[in-house]
Amino acid sequence: MPKIVDHDKQRKKIAEATWRIITREGIEKATVRNIAKEAGISVGSLRHYFSTQSELLAFSMRLVSERVKKRIEGIDFSCPPLEGIKRLIHEVLPLEEETKKEMEVWFTFTQKALWEPELQPLSNQVYHEFRSAIKLIIETLLKLELARPNLNVDLEVERLYALIDGLAIHIIMQPNHLTPEMVESIVDHHLRSLCR
Amino acid sequence: MPKIVDHDKQRKKIAEATWRIITREGIEKATVRNIAKEAGISVGSLRHYFSTQSELLAFSMRLVSERVKKRIEGIDFSCPPLEGIKRLIHEVLPLEEETKKEMEVWFTFTQKALWEPELQPLSNQVYHEFRSAIKLIIETLLKLELARPNLNVDLEVERLYALIDGLAIHIIMQPNHLTPEMVESIVDHHLRSLCR
Repeated sequence: MPKIVDHDKQRKKIAEATWRIITREGIEKATVRNIAKEAGISVGSLRHYFSTQSELLAFSMRLVSERVKKRIEGIDFSCPPLEGIKRLIHEVLPLEEETKKEMEVWFTFTQKALWEPELQPLSNQVYHEFRSAIKLIIETLLKLELARPNLNVDLEVERLYALIDGLAIHIIMQPNHLTPEMVESIVDHHLRSLCR
Repeated sequence: MPKIVDHDKQRKKIAEATWRIITREGIEKATVRNIAKEAGISVGSLRHYFSTQSELLAFSMRLVSERVKKRIEGIDFSCPPLEGIKRLIHEVLPLEEETKKEMEVWFTFTQKALWEPELQPLSNQVYHEFRSAIKLIIETLLKLELARPNLNVDLEVERLYALIDGLAIHIIMQPNHLTPEMVESIVDHHLRSLCR
């Protein structure tokens, strides 16, 4: 009789092993061989789920995306709205060890997606999911009549989105140069500049 | 008698071949084998100059850096200062085919430098060279009394620098979404927001 494999359980095991390796050693070490070893399964079994390195990278990117979504859902928004918005932005910026690892996955994935057409749909999806979150920020500021009423919404969405991604990249490129305090001041200053 | 090789000439030949491959096929195709073929030299000769792929990537990054510097030196600044500053920013943003290729090199180089310690000194150098250019922009606005006098210089330098790099990445990630006109409006709007 063939062995019955619980695929969901297996995937969860692989996901946890993948994330432990990323956190401990970085995304570049998340190879099929290392993950199989960490999860205590054979390379053959793992290949059943991921036949290429790109699929593994896409899987890691989905993990990051789910982690960020869960954290955003967990934010306590019973505070002044500007404070809530700042909390949301801080959840996506790589200001702590865990979120730095997430950013490394995003950066590696995005760079690879430029060259591998099969990664592009997921790259587009993640880009537009984040863009929607940024759009919600600008729209919330307007709805609460905190933002200046003549704001060009599309322009401000792209400007804030680019600022956040630029800051995120500079933090992981130059961790000794850009401190979390400085990044928080920049975000704070930018949001205030959008308000009345 | 040993053959006398003009090393400078050889390097120039390699640089030109490297850039032709990057422009035609992208940075990922700039391998030792492809560049040797394009330059009409042996893989052995090329290895004399670049023994690893990282050295080749560092060389490509230096080419980009020199190209950008030369273009900035060539800008006609006999125009209103805000216009001159905009011209400078447009020279570093990937708004045309050539500058898109430069950005791809920067992106790939930066991602690799996170994992390869030997690339970090050059990555730091390029980061700080660009940061100095951005600082000069903010200082020029202040000196000409165009900027609001209470500007926090350090904060505005980091904010503008992050905005430019974020925009650059979004352009190459989502070329159909972020048009050159939109990017120019964002830069224009941001610079005006710093002024009186």
